Amino acid sequence: MELVDEMLRGDVLSLARLITTVERDGADVPRIMKAIYPHLGKAYCVGITGPPGAGKSTVVDRLTAVIRQQGLTVGIIAADPTSPFTGGAVLGDRIRMQQHYLDEGVFIRSMATRGSHGGLPRTTGGVIKLLNAFGKDFILVETVGVGQTELDIMENVDTTVVVLVPEAGDTIQTMKAGLFEIADIFVVNKADRPGADNLVTELQMMVHLRCEESWWQVPVMATEAINNVGIEELCGQIEKHRQTLEETGRLTQRRQEQRRREFMETVERRVTDELFRLIKHDEELGQHMAMVEAGEIDPYSAADEVLRPGTLMASWSRQLAKRRPTS
Amino acid sequence: MELVDEMLRGDVLSLARLITTVERDGADVPRIMKAIYPHLGKAYCVGITGPPGAGKSTVVDRLTAVIRQQGLTVGIIAADPTSPFTGGAVLGDRIRMQQHYLDEGVFIRSMATRGSHGGLPRTTGGVIKLLNAFGKDFILVETVGVGQTELDIMENVDTTVVVLVPEAGDTIQTMKAGLFEIADIFVVNKADRPGADNLVTELQMMVHLRCEESWWQVPVMATEAINNVGIEELCGQIEKHRQTLEETGRLTQRRQEQRRREFMETVERRVTDELFRLIKHDEELGQHMAMVEAGEIDPYSAADEVLRPGTLMASWSRQLAKRRPTS
Repeated sequence: MELVDEMLRGDVLSLARLITTVERDGADVPRIMKAIYPHLGKAYCVGITGPPGAGKSTVVDRLTAVIRQQGLTVGIIAADPTSPFTGGAVLGDRIRMQQHYLDEGVFIRSMATRGSHGGLPRTTGGVIKLLNAFGKDFILVETVGVGQTELDIMENVDTTVVVLVPEAGDTIQTMKAGLFEIADIFVVNKADRPGADNLVTELQMMVHLRCEESWWQVPVMATEAINNVGIEELCGQIEKHRQTLEETGRLTQRRQEQRRREFMETVERRVTDELFRLIKHDEELGQHMAMVEAGEIDPYSAADEVLRPGTLMASWSRQLAKRRPTS
Repeated sequence: MELVDEMLRGDVLSLARLITTVERDGADVPRIMKAIYPHLGKAYCVGITGPPGAGKSTVVDRLTAVIRQQGLTVGIIAADPTSPFTGGAVLGDRIRMQQHYLDEGVFIRSMATRGSHGGLPRTTGGVIKLLNAFGKDFILVETVGVGQTELDIMENVDTTVVVLVPEAGDTIQTMKAGLFEIADIFVVNKADRPGADNLVTELQMMVHLRCEESWWQVPVMATEAINNVGIEELCGQIEKHRQTLEETGRLTQRRQEQRRREFMETVERRVTDELFRLIKHDEELGQHMAMVEAGEIDPYSAADEVLRPGTLMASWSRQLAKRRPTS
């Protein structure tokens, strides 16, 4: 694909166009993915998650500056609807971010929200791959860690940083929201606020209590991202986590699991797409749908009918056979 | 099914057992659903959603009291991990709720969180149906309106009440989280706090601005649930929304869409379950999976291979044919 070739040669506009296609989940996506797969580079992907208002985008902003100082390139995916990267915050934030907008070594992409619900697009994983193939050294994904979809996306990253602020109740909410289980590194941001020390101590105790595994002790760090306090240390911990993942073989294992999941999801998608097209066009199947809608048959019995061999199966195989020759 | 029969005769223990099965998504679920489908009653389902700390469970608690006073029965599903119904809140809350625990006309069920992530179980829709078949007049579903899954569950309810509190930034967050689009009724709870009047006015303006449809004007109500202020009025608005849905034919239409969705989801589930079982047991398919994991083939090309007619299709039809005779 020409667009992919141009992107691989470093053309930012092509990259942006490809992202839009992947984001919209267009028909070209499998072809794009096949084309970029051999070019997936060495990008390391860091997820920054936490409740709204924790200062995640400031952390991303400051981390980017540190990584750039090391001469490495950065791709930023803001999948947080309240992020200043996506345009969700006050003007001051947006102005701060502009230093990176002017830096050629930084590519910033805010994800459109899925449907009208403001949920995270499932296609974020594909966008990470595009930035990877484009040659970025680091990919930072900013997301609000709340729903299942958001947490699923975190399975595409290598290191997950959970950002909290010293406010009452935060810890309990964090536990409940499942953030505790995905955290590789905890950051207590806005650490100049009252209660920060307590939250750090509390998190350290919690980490200590549940860390039965000895390969990685989740660090709890205090930062004031807005004042650049603690950011280099955070960068150091991310690097340390990466090394540990590599040395213990866990990075390889994680990548294998990611590929496996991608395969399963692709097969699932294609099979169900095919099915729904069938249900829409096959007369007999359409009748079942109408009966379900009218409440004349329950959805489960209708599914039995539709999946009976001789009906859907036959129709399906026939249609597939029409499209390409059996090999 | 005996358990279903007993549940339909009013046995609470059987109901609880069935809910557990549905919640765990056991193999019996399609059979249970088929058995209860003809018994789906006249239950009206109200979703109570909003950010954590808005007082949703207090609203549910007080609404329940009002509905009970009308001689109607209530089923409560708490799918909010921070709800006192699920045990997520302070002791005081839980004691308050106990009045309903002792009332035979109220059935309370807290949903276990899905996986380890604390996300809402997709099976909530099935649990609503069980409470419906059991004969409850009202079903109240309490959930935190944040992720996509949570919002999907709201498609199973008839009236959605969005509960907010007068705190800065809430409105914007609400917009972003997609709560604005699903609200049939807005409640500004803790209305004795400063800023409540402003929030009410702001919401009213927003409602007014975007209400192109004239069939329902989303009301904005101020409540102090803890002091029982505004709860009867809220109940009145829910009733009014219900009547409007019925008179305009929208309730019928919504129910049709729900059945349609249920059918599609059931078919999708069964087809993919079948597929994954195949991939696991079929030698040729297993080899593809291994190659994907090792990175020797990209997931998309592997999916092409697996879905080629003559491989999976053939194997699948063969297996389906073995299980039951073709009709």
